[in-house]
Amino acid sequence: MDLRSLGLEARQAFDILSRSDSKVRERAVLAIGDELAIRLDEITMANAKDIEAARESGLSESLIDRLTLDKPRITGMIHDVKVLAELPDPIGSTFDERILPNGLRLSRRRVPLGVLGIIYESRPNVTIDVAALAIKTGNTVILRGGSETIQSNLVLVDVVKAALGRVGLPQSAVQFIENPERALVGEMLRLNEFIDVIVPRGGSQLHDFCRKNATIPVITGGIGICHLFVDREADLEAALPVIHNAKTQRPSVCNALDTLLVHEAIAQEFLQKVVDHLAPSGVTFRAEPKAISVVHHPAVQPAGPEDFDTEWLSLILGLKVVRDLDEALDHILTHSTNHSDGILTENQENAARFIEQIDSAAVYVNASTRFTDGGQFGLGAEVAVSTQRLHARGPMGLPELTTYKWVVIGDYTVRE
Amino acid sequence: MDLRSLGLEARQAFDILSRSDSKVRERAVLAIGDELAIRLDEITMANAKDIEAARESGLSESLIDRLTLDKPRITGMIHDVKVLAELPDPIGSTFDERILPNGLRLSRRRVPLGVLGIIYESRPNVTIDVAALAIKTGNTVILRGGSETIQSNLVLVDVVKAALGRVGLPQSAVQFIENPERALVGEMLRLNEFIDVIVPRGGSQLHDFCRKNATIPVITGGIGICHLFVDREADLEAALPVIHNAKTQRPSVCNALDTLLVHEAIAQEFLQKVVDHLAPSGVTFRAEPKAISVVHHPAVQPAGPEDFDTEWLSLILGLKVVRDLDEALDHILTHSTNHSDGILTENQENAARFIEQIDSAAVYVNASTRFTDGGQFGLGAEVAVSTQRLHARGPMGLPELTTYKWVVIGDYTVRE
Repeated sequence: MDLRSLGLEARQAFDILSRSDSKVRERAVLAIGDELAIRLDEITMANAKDIEAARESGLSESLIDRLTLDKPRITGMIHDVKVLAELPDPIGSTFDERILPNGLRLSRRRVPLGVLGIIYESRPNVTIDVAALAIKTGNTVILRGGSETIQSNLVLVDVVKAALGRVGLPQSAVQFIENPERALVGEMLRLNEFIDVIVPRGGSQLHDFCRKNATIPVITGGIGICHLFVDREADLEAALPVIHNAKTQRPSVCNALDTLLVHEAIAQEFLQKVVDHLAPSGVTFRAEPKAISVVHHPAVQPAGPEDFDTEWLSLILGLKVVRDLDEALDHILTHSTNHSDGILTENQENAARFIEQIDSAAVYVNASTRFTDGGQFGLGAEVAVSTQRLHARGPMGLPELTTYKWVVIGDYTVRE
Repeated sequence: MDLRSLGLEARQAFDILSRSDSKVRERAVLAIGDELAIRLDEITMANAKDIEAARESGLSESLIDRLTLDKPRITGMIHDVKVLAELPDPIGSTFDERILPNGLRLSRRRVPLGVLGIIYESRPNVTIDVAALAIKTGNTVILRGGSETIQSNLVLVDVVKAALGRVGLPQSAVQFIENPERALVGEMLRLNEFIDVIVPRGGSQLHDFCRKNATIPVITGGIGICHLFVDREADLEAALPVIHNAKTQRPSVCNALDTLLVHEAIAQEFLQKVVDHLAPSGVTFRAEPKAISVVHHPAVQPAGPEDFDTEWLSLILGLKVVRDLDEALDHILTHSTNHSDGILTENQENAARFIEQIDSAAVYVNASTRFTDGGQFGLGAEVAVSTQRLHARGPMGLPELTTYKWVVIGDYTVRE
């Protein structure tokens, strides 16, 4: 099918989904979970083909790990989908109700966002996450997955279509572009007649390509150079596991810690502890001169000129000693990608200043940066983590897949 | 100054404005009102030059009316600015507060949207509206006005800069592109490094140009093919002034009525009344065959094939008889630009169905469509009226110039 027909079908399906009953959509999402369970073997077999092809084409083990769907992961997906199905549906709720001086009753009513265009790589679980979030909120979606997961995605899309069919919703609500040609992405980005928003999930090159070529608003994000600043008044014993968690719990993702800033008053004592605590987990360090001078460990090497502007996505951690909160704020405002940044401190005033001054999608006090995630924030999975400013910032879950219409009720009211 | 430097300055000014005190921003907006009053004669003199040039180049009287700034209009602007200054500031407010099962305290905090890029034509009051809204909410703005109002705009921008200077905010918070070259618009649309959103205010050609060339999300809107459906159970006497108001109160704007749909059960009686009531105000009619057959008036002529897809912006009104609510819904869903559409009815069920089914930015029951306006909705003027779905729909006032950041407070909390 050509792309325009596919866009038109998604738009027509939106007219149905956006007016469908919330309970029906909930049942569709539950049915995705059921279908995943029924077709578990089929999914792992398709996935095995993708893994084999990936090995043959020499993809790295970490990339292969990202595209792998084994039984525990699918079981996890089934669980997540069922949790998502039962979250409150934001559609139809009313907010900002008021009565104007002329008697008009004004309110905003939450409605689905529209037709979503998602361009993603590797992780095939995104197919299910996005489809389930979209259906739950009455949206439709055009998916463009990577060629390295095509076998898995074809089955997963079939799973979603079967679930839609089970409850009588149009299967065209979730469209998948099978053709791996790159030119189709360019064409998709210009389907502004049918698609309301483009969400790329991938590296900065993909984001740039989308920004440059789209005639549709693009929500960029998912690139996190994340910071924690350990203030002089932090509980240093409690800080160690937070830093360890932020760096090592899943180093390959965007909300993992990249740079640790430490107040100079505690650097001498604390930095060595950090290195001793994290090095056994395989972490290596890139330290600027002041930090180098107070730590002694073979895992520590001098930071290069680009190191504080690098999203590591691995077990590397930048270390820097700062004079005070101001220098920490300056460093973060200069080097952050406005994804997730935090302070560890017992000083309420410093915590408040940090929250006020740091303008990242998620700002943390005394917590790991690893929480910036739709599931963790209680939004029911996520379509992406936005680091741009329009419409949504941070994890885009159920509420972020909605917009509103104004409802105005009068008594044959006219404007003076 | 080249455009990149101008963008950089606006971005740097945003770092200051976005962290500035709400009271200071309020005083800046009040100062705009004061400066407008002080420099009233200077403004009208500059505006006279624009009018003269417009006459020389043969602009229509209705366009000249749009760009005219006389004393009553400036007095109106001063009043509106003072009202805006004292509206509640949305910045810093917190919403969606909750405590997660792991003890994390999660909330969203309202912050300014960023650097706005506004491209507009004719009406110089937009300069003041946009600048005041932006400053009030801690945003900065790059303005690109039309060449036909350049003299007026230069003085108005100077007024805003003086006001910013008075309260110690950076004058670079409001930038104006003086150079009339069209190529600069193209360049502006690719300044994604500095500009967060582009809002075009003009015809569909300008919107298409922005969509095609921007590497920044574009909020399109301001084009309204607006409908009212008179149901069989409407209060017909009360309906007449609503229709009159929607069509004639200001026919040149986007929320004016374009098409009147009438239930066939009342068409015979009611359509003649509509024509008799509106024709004396200069309204002429384009009626489809069924409507033609029940009215008799020289102001009524047969509708052409494009007439129900035309935004009239003048005293023309399309007339159509429909079988029932369903046909009215079908017609609106096919021909509306999703701006403002309404039903006139005493039937609560039909009103509810209309609200449910019509997915326009503003949906009306028993009111004139002329209310879709930031000032009327109590948002404090408007930057534009959005008819796209991302971020904002309908009038974009104070709340629509904000975004949020997530604030996450823990007790050295780690992700399991």
